Amino acid sequence: MVWKFDEIYMTNINGVRSAGVSCGLKEDNKLDLALIVLDKPVFAEAMFTKNTVKAAPIIVSKRHLEKYGMIQAIVINSGQANACTGEKGIKDAEMMAERVAKNLGIDKELVFVASTGKIGAYLEMDKIVSGIDMACKVLSKNSGRKVAEAIMTTDTFPKISSVKYGDVVISGIAKGAGMIHPDMATMLVFIGTNAKLEKDAMKKILRRSVDRSFHQISIDGCTSTNDTVLLFATGEKEIKENIFQKGLNLLTEDLAKMIAKDGEGATKLIEIRIEKAESLKKARVLGRAVITSNLVKAAFAGGDDNWGRILASIGQTGYIIDLNRIELYIGKYLVFAKNEPLRYNSQEVKNYLKNREVMVRIVLNEGRYNATSWGSDLTEEYVKINAYYRT
Amino acid sequence: MVWKFDEIYMTNINGVRSAGVSCGLKEDNKLDLALIVLDKPVFAEAMFTKNTVKAAPIIVSKRHLEKYGMIQAIVINSGQANACTGEKGIKDAEMMAERVAKNLGIDKELVFVASTGKIGAYLEMDKIVSGIDMACKVLSKNSGRKVAEAIMTTDTFPKISSVKYGDVVISGIAKGAGMIHPDMATMLVFIGTNAKLEKDAMKKILRRSVDRSFHQISIDGCTSTNDTVLLFATGEKEIKENIFQKGLNLLTEDLAKMIAKDGEGATKLIEIRIEKAESLKKARVLGRAVITSNLVKAAFAGGDDNWGRILASIGQTGYIIDLNRIELYIGKYLVFAKNEPLRYNSQEVKNYLKNREVMVRIVLNEGRYNATSWGSDLTEEYVKINAYYRT
Repeated sequence: MVWKFDEIYMTNINGVRSAGVSCGLKEDNKLDLALIVLDKPVFAEAMFTKNTVKAAPIIVSKRHLEKYGMIQAIVINSGQANACTGEKGIKDAEMMAERVAKNLGIDKELVFVASTGKIGAYLEMDKIVSGIDMACKVLSKNSGRKVAEAIMTTDTFPKISSVKYGDVVISGIAKGAGMIHPDMATMLVFIGTNAKLEKDAMKKILRRSVDRSFHQISIDGCTSTNDTVLLFATGEKEIKENIFQKGLNLLTEDLAKMIAKDGEGATKLIEIRIEKAESLKKARVLGRAVITSNLVKAAFAGGDDNWGRILASIGQTGYIIDLNRIELYIGKYLVFAKNEPLRYNSQEVKNYLKNREVMVRIVLNEGRYNATSWGSDLTEEYVKINAYYRT
Repeated sequence: MVWKFDEIYMTNINGVRSAGVSCGLKEDNKLDLALIVLDKPVFAEAMFTKNTVKAAPIIVSKRHLEKYGMIQAIVINSGQANACTGEKGIKDAEMMAERVAKNLGIDKELVFVASTGKIGAYLEMDKIVSGIDMACKVLSKNSGRKVAEAIMTTDTFPKISSVKYGDVVISGIAKGAGMIHPDMATMLVFIGTNAKLEKDAMKKILRRSVDRSFHQISIDGCTSTNDTVLLFATGEKEIKENIFQKGLNLLTEDLAKMIAKDGEGATKLIEIRIEKAESLKKARVLGRAVITSNLVKAAFAGGDDNWGRILASIGQTGYIIDLNRIELYIGKYLVFAKNEPLRYNSQEVKNYLKNREVMVRIVLNEGRYNATSWGSDLTEEYVKINAYYRT
């Protein structure tokens, strides 16, 4: 038996209901408040942004999660990040949890809060409070897609992915990275499973998956104040830890690629494979360096086979790069090897780069570690979105 | 007596002659080969890119400089970087030095070589060799500006600055950072002085100045394979070390700002001042983080007072940011303090951001260290230059 992708929602898991509503934070009655509710408290683990400027909901959610190590509800608003909002911001995030808790008749520490949107403005709490009350009334099993839509900012499509292994389900939703009109920031990911997992193991399993997926994508090199990845497990179905890890890896990689592909202004998904590195860390750092390079990303936007920029970007990491050993491929085309620029058909490579998904392989030939990273190209549209749309 | 800026060239220094010629590496007969020659060998110090993928001229120049610790000539070509060109690249760089040495009748190890331009293509040595022969024949005292022009790639203006303190002169030329049509990379800086400096002190003095100037600018966050800063001193005029340091700081800061201002596609110079930090390192790292943030740079391109991105960018460094203490100014406007977003006239700040030079102050209120960094805004033109012009 193997993990298979399946078109189901988180609400297909027993005991999970949700709602996605519009409370007026976004224009045009777009969905902007999401609520996920469980019939009973379940184990959960979360990872938060490494940015030391942390948004209020992160501070509050971390504190809540630490109390029981469990959650029974998740409330998320889009449109306003509640970051750099001081004490009032903390109170507002707490009020969100309290309002959910009161409606559901549960402890407020069982409510996990997240926000995404513009940094540096207070939440419009009147709208959010009425949104929460509304959402609590319309919880259902058939609102999975609405929840994914309600956490979107300038994402161009909702990001939902699910995998199945027999009767074990893992299902996740994500909101893309890159800052967006009006200055939306933040990557948010919420994953639920009906698997039974040891609480201690969950943390380790989640970190492993995140390190190889969400930590390997870059839209613009900027981390946000609100980034959050949450995993909860209802504990219904037995499964071996290593098998669950495989499924979670599959799912998080799928969601990470969706986020990368939907980067602001992006016209293509770029996949960077670092192969045969001396360490996993080096493989990952090098991959991230390439996918973060403005010059590489701009070249790819223009379909330019300017591979010198790729080598310059890995050199920038400070890691020793042995050009005598490296093979550099754009798609199937070998463009550099044995410290020599190779003759190749430049037009063929340029044609390849016109695809919606392109791949670069850097084979270091120094060890046995591989890593993959993903990102989008850097386009004029990215600059437009981030420079002009708000003003 | 104080250091004063003066409109003179490096060739005003006794014993310095130069030439800037066109040898066909660039189109339209643009100047593309520069030669600076001294009547006798003089002490010199250089700093090179930290990128571990180093261009051939850097490897050769480092080796040459280590032999005597002196130079008698500098040869620079623009248009081709001679990077990622393997053994042949090294031989080509050596041949450049040898050709200059032969023409001048000096040791080849007294010749310093630099290149700037596209990575990953071999030098057109026939053109370069004839360019060197030509340059050696037209060395003069009145070619200072031509030399600065000959090292340009897509810089929009030659970068020349000089300071005087009595009869002590320090004069420098620079070529801008950011990669450019056709994929020009590399920051190059050459500084000459008639001051008498201890060889040991030169290294220390140069590093101090570079750390606070060229190491604090960013166009696109990408370091290149060819970055080089060279200082030579003819030793004619006595001066105290600390006074010379001040003059060199003044000069390097001036050149650094010119480079930042002339970033690809730039419409404005952004100055970031980190004040009252607990350490100099923290002040510098935070400043670099802001000036490297795509989101901050894109916001400034659009004249958007989106200060949340500034706080997010310093949080990304991993340094603890105490929002309770921070004051954030855009120009003279205080926008955030004591962990509170402040009420201010957003339109006034937007108007301020329309200026050609804008300034941000982040007062940390935790110590006594300050640092300034500079960069350009991120515009659609930057993307165009780096995506489409070559293809």
